[in-house]
Amino acid sequence: MTADDLVSLRRDLHRKPEPAWREFYTTARIVDELEARLGDDLAALHVGPAAIAGDHRMAVPDDAELTHWYERARDAGVDDDVLERLEGGYTGAVAVLERGTGPTVGLRVDIDALPRSESDDPAHRPVAEGFRSEHDGAMHACGHDAHATIGIGTLEAVAESDFSGTLKVFFQPAEEVVGGGKPMAESEHLQDVDALLAVHIGLDHPTGEIVAGIDGFLAVAHVEAAFTGESAHAGGHPEQGRNAVQAMATAVQNLYGIPRHNDGATRVNAGVVEGGSAANVIPDEARIVAEVRGETTELMEYMKRRTRRVLRSAAEMHDCEVEIEIGAEAPSATSDQALVSIVADVADDTAGVDTVLERDELGGSEDATFLMRAVQENGGTACYVGVGTDHPGGHHTATFDVDEDSIQHGIDTLAGTIERLGDR
Amino acid sequence: MTADDLVSLRRDLHRKPEPAWREFYTTARIVDELEARLGDDLAALHVGPAAIAGDHRMAVPDDAELTHWYERARDAGVDDDVLERLEGGYTGAVAVLERGTGPTVGLRVDIDALPRSESDDPAHRPVAEGFRSEHDGAMHACGHDAHATIGIGTLEAVAESDFSGTLKVFFQPAEEVVGGGKPMAESEHLQDVDALLAVHIGLDHPTGEIVAGIDGFLAVAHVEAAFTGESAHAGGHPEQGRNAVQAMATAVQNLYGIPRHNDGATRVNAGVVEGGSAANVIPDEARIVAEVRGETTELMEYMKRRTRRVLRSAAEMHDCEVEIEIGAEAPSATSDQALVSIVADVADDTAGVDTVLERDELGGSEDATFLMRAVQENGGTACYVGVGTDHPGGHHTATFDVDEDSIQHGIDTLAGTIERLGDR
Amino acid sequence: MTADDLVSLRRDLHRKPEPAWREFYTTARIVDELEARLGDDLAALHVGPAAIAGDHRMAVPDDAELTHWYERARDAGVDDDVLERLEGGYTGAVAVLERGTGPTVGLRVDIDALPRSESDDPAHRPVAEGFRSEHDGAMHACGHDAHATIGIGTLEAVAESDFSGTLKVFFQPAEEVVGGGKPMAESEHLQDVDALLAVHIGLDHPTGEIVAGIDGFLAVAHVEAAFTGESAHAGGHPEQGRNAVQAMATAVQNLYGIPRHNDGATRVNAGVVEGGSAANVIPDEARIVAEVRGETTELMEYMKRRTRRVLRSAAEMHDCEVEIEIGAEAPSATSDQALVSIVADVADDTAGVDTVLERDELGGSEDATFLMRAVQENGGTACYVGVGTDHPGGHHTATFDVDEDSIQHGIDTLAGTIERLGDR
Amino acid sequence: MTADDLVSLRRDLHRKPEPAWREFYTTARIVDELEARLGDDLAALHVGPAAIAGDHRMAVPDDAELTHWYERARDAGVDDDVLERLEGGYTGAVAVLERGTGPTVGLRVDIDALPRSESDDPAHRPVAEGFRSEHDGAMHACGHDAHATIGIGTLEAVAESDFSGTLKVFFQPAEEVVGGGKPMAESEHLQDVDALLAVHIGLDHPTGEIVAGIDGFLAVAHVEAAFTGESAHAGGHPEQGRNAVQAMATAVQNLYGIPRHNDGATRVNAGVVEGGSAANVIPDEARIVAEVRGETTELMEYMKRRTRRVLRSAAEMHDCEVEIEIGAEAPSATSDQALVSIVADVADDTAGVDTVLERDELGGSEDATFLMRAVQENGGTACYVGVGTDHPGGHHTATFDVDEDSIQHGIDTLAGTIERLGDR
Repeated sequence: MTADDLVSLRRDLHRKPEPAWREFYTTARIVDELEARLGDDLAALHVGPAAIAGDHRMAVPDDAELTHWYERARDAGVDDDVLERLEGGYTGAVAVLERGTGPTVGLRVDIDALPRSESDDPAHRPVAEGFRSEHDGAMHACGHDAHATIGIGTLEAVAESDFSGTLKVFFQPAEEVVGGGKPMAESEHLQDVDALLAVHIGLDHPTGEIVAGIDGFLAVAHVEAAFTGESAHAGGHPEQGRNAVQAMATAVQNLYGIPRHNDGATRVNAGVVEGGSAANVIPDEARIVAEVRGETTELMEYMKRRTRRVLRSAAEMHDCEVEIEIGAEAPSATSDQALVSIVADVADDTAGVDTVLERDELGGSEDATFLMRAVQENGGTACYVGVGTDHPGGHHTATFDVDEDSIQHGIDTLAGTIERLGDR
Repeated sequence: MTADDLVSLRRDLHRKPEPAWREFYTTARIVDELEARLGDDLAALHVGPAAIAGDHRMAVPDDAELTHWYERARDAGVDDDVLERLEGGYTGAVAVLERGTGPTVGLRVDIDALPRSESDDPAHRPVAEGFRSEHDGAMHACGHDAHATIGIGTLEAVAESDFSGTLKVFFQPAEEVVGGGKPMAESEHLQDVDALLAVHIGLDHPTGEIVAGIDGFLAVAHVEAAFTGESAHAGGHPEQGRNAVQAMATAVQNLYGIPRHNDGATRVNAGVVEGGSAANVIPDEARIVAEVRGETTELMEYMKRRTRRVLRSAAEMHDCEVEIEIGAEAPSATSDQALVSIVADVADDTAGVDTVLERDELGGSEDATFLMRAVQENGGTACYVGVGTDHPGGHHTATFDVDEDSIQHGIDTLAGTIERLGDR
Repeated sequence: MTADDLVSLRRDLHRKPEPAWREFYTTARIVDELEARLGDDLAALHVGPAAIAGDHRMAVPDDAELTHWYERARDAGVDDDVLERLEGGYTGAVAVLERGTGPTVGLRVDIDALPRSESDDPAHRPVAEGFRSEHDGAMHACGHDAHATIGIGTLEAVAESDFSGTLKVFFQPAEEVVGGGKPMAESEHLQDVDALLAVHIGLDHPTGEIVAGIDGFLAVAHVEAAFTGESAHAGGHPEQGRNAVQAMATAVQNLYGIPRHNDGATRVNAGVVEGGSAANVIPDEARIVAEVRGETTELMEYMKRRTRRVLRSAAEMHDCEVEIEIGAEAPSATSDQALVSIVADVADDTAGVDTVLERDELGGSEDATFLMRAVQENGGTACYVGVGTDHPGGHHTATFDVDEDSIQHGIDTLAGTIERLGDR
Repeated sequence: MTADDLVSLRRDLHRKPEPAWREFYTTARIVDELEARLGDDLAALHVGPAAIAGDHRMAVPDDAELTHWYERARDAGVDDDVLERLEGGYTGAVAVLERGTGPTVGLRVDIDALPRSESDDPAHRPVAEGFRSEHDGAMHACGHDAHATIGIGTLEAVAESDFSGTLKVFFQPAEEVVGGGKPMAESEHLQDVDALLAVHIGLDHPTGEIVAGIDGFLAVAHVEAAFTGESAHAGGHPEQGRNAVQAMATAVQNLYGIPRHNDGATRVNAGVVEGGSAANVIPDEARIVAEVRGETTELMEYMKRRTRRVLRSAAEMHDCEVEIEIGAEAPSATSDQALVSIVADVADDTAGVDTVLERDELGGSEDATFLMRAVQENGGTACYVGVGTDHPGGHHTATFDVDEDSIQHGIDTLAGTIERLGDR
């Protein structure tokens, strides 16, 4: 792919960000691009239910939401045959390239967007250059548009190289809700992978920097709490209400107050809250969508335990009920030194790369860890690769953007590593 | 109207509840019914912008919301000519009956529903008898469906009586958001009213009880606060966020903690809250829709002052900005004894009425007070009438319903009072 | 007593304020004064355990505290014989005057101070004129120094009048902690009282105003909560702590947020809190001393129920235990019209009184209600009398003070009423 | 010193725990013991103001408190001459031993106790064996009684060895309030120290383990906030109060909710809180004694900044004023490898030591860092040594205790290291 091709594909995906399990347009666009570029060269192209272990999907939205995004993708004019295979929120794809004898190498890229609005500041490049999100309330604020592009670019580059072996590229849905890693890890496609690479752009590293081996993933769990109280006329009978919003506010205050832990980093965030129906009604319903993290799985469990206690007591304080759902979890993982060394070595020779770090700490979470652990448990190796990019706003913020030059750095480093991993 | 007519009309309105400024179907249905029953008997029928002083509307929803409900009303098959006159959220109507010389008597009924879901318990009569709300998230949980029906029934009853004078029935929109009372009070139609009656069903009084003169309205103000912070990756850089949900939760906790006042009753309710976009993003936006009340206007002002302080400080605590809008307010009011006595007298002779109370305290708010005060300031008199009805759930709750027998009690008492007020 | 005597006695008491059950100096001083002025004229003078039903004492401080104040009183040089009768916190006195046949009239005055510091502002009269509290952390901030003075002055005035009957003056301890009313109401001395007067100075009424019949006492309950968690090194192992201060803070926030009640006024106050031992230790102990009030006993019970729930849930939220003690309670009460009329009538003729109000609402609480109810249940009558006084600061604040002229108004009104109540 | 001497001295100190700047008995006892054991062997013994740079003292209690403890020490019968030199809270001592040419080696031990109660559980060894704290509300819950003993024991052991050089033992007061490290670091005595050792017992390491080089000290700052509002009668005029306890509770809730930081560990603790005067008075005063920590000085500054914001906004929310004092701070520090290696080497040969760790992370704070940094800035080296001890309860808890066998391990390791550091 030419530099223009890469930019053009990435921007098309950026314009149409789709959150978890709603990547209908995105998946179809990827399939389209792969077929156009590689066509019969691919040994297989598994799409939707054929790509993932559907039973393991986590944090799938309701039918109304799925339908809304499905129809929007149809309206955008994607291939109906592909689209129909994704119905019900079975998104994602696995592309397989077979090039003679040799090991099976995997590359995992995630493709979902975030449910947040993009900046409309004229200085924000997607605005200035006309590729801002067309989907109100959704945005590629974590660079997965670039990841999908890197996946396709790497596949093409390897296809054109002397690589000997099998390459599988996993286009994984629903990373942001920790929902897609497990079903992809449980799919049959991962079982025979000998070496797995995963990639992330940015992470506060500038353009020209490659990180061989990112560790320090925080284990994470998604938590949803639904408080139910009793409504009453707020003027006439406030005492008859059981106020779900008071319970929710008490919970939020105390969730953020869960004690820090001496064994390592912990996190908690009440990322989405809502409650009540009208100003003059004592609210009988409220909801918190939260997540907790820990530097180890034990620390994440500590946070979960404390979170449950806070939620239950807050409900009880205001005579409400609460239903707590622990939605999706991911473990932590570590990169294998053998792979780290190869990636570092290749990166050193990659054009445009001026700094190569061996190992760095993430401080965030990633459900790529499901795939890494699965491969490692089968006796394989895994490595998480960071591709630096100058990003004006932080990850998950309204002004996040990538320096598109870095897409090529990622493709070169990954394709070079994969070629090296093949039989000689 | 026969008893069956009353029930059938009320249930039709109950099935199609429309919240403030969205009473498109409701207004059209009322106009339809009036034209069918009274036709040329009416001296005038002012609809939509012709019925209210549009500049004074408060708490009008945004265009997307208005359009959604407008289209829904169209789909339900109402008269397009009427509907078009309501476009942009100018709902409500004023019907005028002229019957020779005599005073101008006003009757005000409100017609809007609440933005809350109705119970689907099979024991809830609207479910059992098939007239539960067809609009998800909206419900006639305060009896305004019965009020509209009483308005039409009373008009017809007076038309058939010996009444001498002019009767104006004000079908007022947007009472629940304290939004319609003022624009109706400011319209020219109210200027010449000599005696005004307003009516409410229920209020914890049983079927067979009439309250002549409800007082103790709490002054009320609607408050909206929008918090803006800064988002950040909740795992990667929690310290870079400025958390709008933490600000909101702190505000909620402290709003409910505003000190009680020795001069009389006060109220505060954070009736609707929401914030954040995703579990893994530090929330940069949150909102509170609240209301405060006071037994006097001074007490309401005290609550407003304290509310502003809480909102501002909560924002500052989490380094957020907050925009505060005081959306709509209503004063308190008192019923005039002259009218109270007539209503009580008539009620005593009304079939089905077994108890008549002179004066009772409401403990809630009502923007009928705008109309009552306007008439009183012009030298007229006003009286707020309560019509008892057995209601299984409290006002504003999911199981609220009215005993339909009481509709006739309301019509008889009001029509009888109006007739008495006419010239002899 | 001359005006100078009254001022001098009141100021002496003001200088030596003693909180509940610690009125050692105060009681001894009263006894002293009574013996000096009335001596053998008194039929009886019951002191300490002889004055109250000791088993019913509530909110008695611990021995160390009692001893501290006892020694301080001894050091101040009071009569050792009297002092010894008060040992263990049995304070208060009942003086009996018999003057022939006639009814038994009671007068109840309270004598305790508040555990709060007095202003040292030079403009505060007790500072300017040298009678500021000599007891750090204690202050007569509610006028009980004046009450005690009125009690003695009234007794002397009645003794010198034509009164025919029996007068008992109850010098009641521990009103501020709702602790002394019940033991005095349960003592034998109250059993034969036919008409009871109680008196309070100030209450936002100016000098020259008398209120015949104060009602609207809020029922009150005293609540103490002791939270126990587990300490830990705040730097080394914050996660091992169970933080009693977090539990306490959560409770305080939610106590003030208990919903207002439509049936009438409610109150809650976390008046004293404390917790923890050192900045670097996760606090394992915290305490709240609170009170709740209600316009009726039912409303007070509602507040108590909600308070318990808040305290229990706050403890649970932070994995702490909590012990809740409901310490002392007082009911509400109403003045009898027969007495109200006499007081008003006498007040009308009292020199210096320019305004007489019949009935007013207090909005506070008073354990005089125990005595009033006891007398009323025995078939007697009771009346609570307000004596206006210009007070620069509000009751219970650091700058509270009384206009000493009003002491005479109180004595004249009460003595006049008592004389009228005697046989003729 | 024999094992019995060590135990006996440590237990004597344990019985008489004295918090920061109140170590009157402790200092006098140390001076006494040094004079008895070493007498004229000492080149100098600097006591009180002569030992520290008094201007740099932080977190000194008020005069009443100092006097109370001073008198208590006098009553316990210590040498009046020594005691008088400590007046005003100038505690601590520096003992100097000169043994020919060679480097100046420093040993720093801290001597203060914590303001917390000791367990009275019969199973707690100090209870069982009769050396529980005799001072209510104070306890050696962090082993400084053992540190002082180690300081004396090491001095004696070095005096009896072949050490060539100068040894200074710094008996530092007020470590627990981060108050004594700076004044000792600023004293002239530290200026010529070439190598500094500091020691701590326990820290979750078992008896028989020595840690050569503890790092990971959290920088710490002590924060005090005094809220001032306005009192009012809680029943009569709650609206007139400005509630300092509500402000405090809001602050506590939000202090613990300060966002975690991705750059490393942070801590916050509201270790002591108090407010209000009586249940029926709206509280006009409240106080928080807190501390914040950070893995780096920058992180501690981040916590301080956020803490200020929370405190100020909480005050403003309840219309209160707040005075914030940042009382005492300590930086972080690192042990030098040269010293670490020697300590490890000596420990390996120490009787009773079965495990030697090179380097461990503390996760707490220590104002020994002031002394370590001062020596390092002068070109010297420093090392913080951990002496394992089986401790049943955690540091700062009511059941903390040390295994007295470990005192000898500390003395042997330190004295051995010091001897090695001397000229050969």
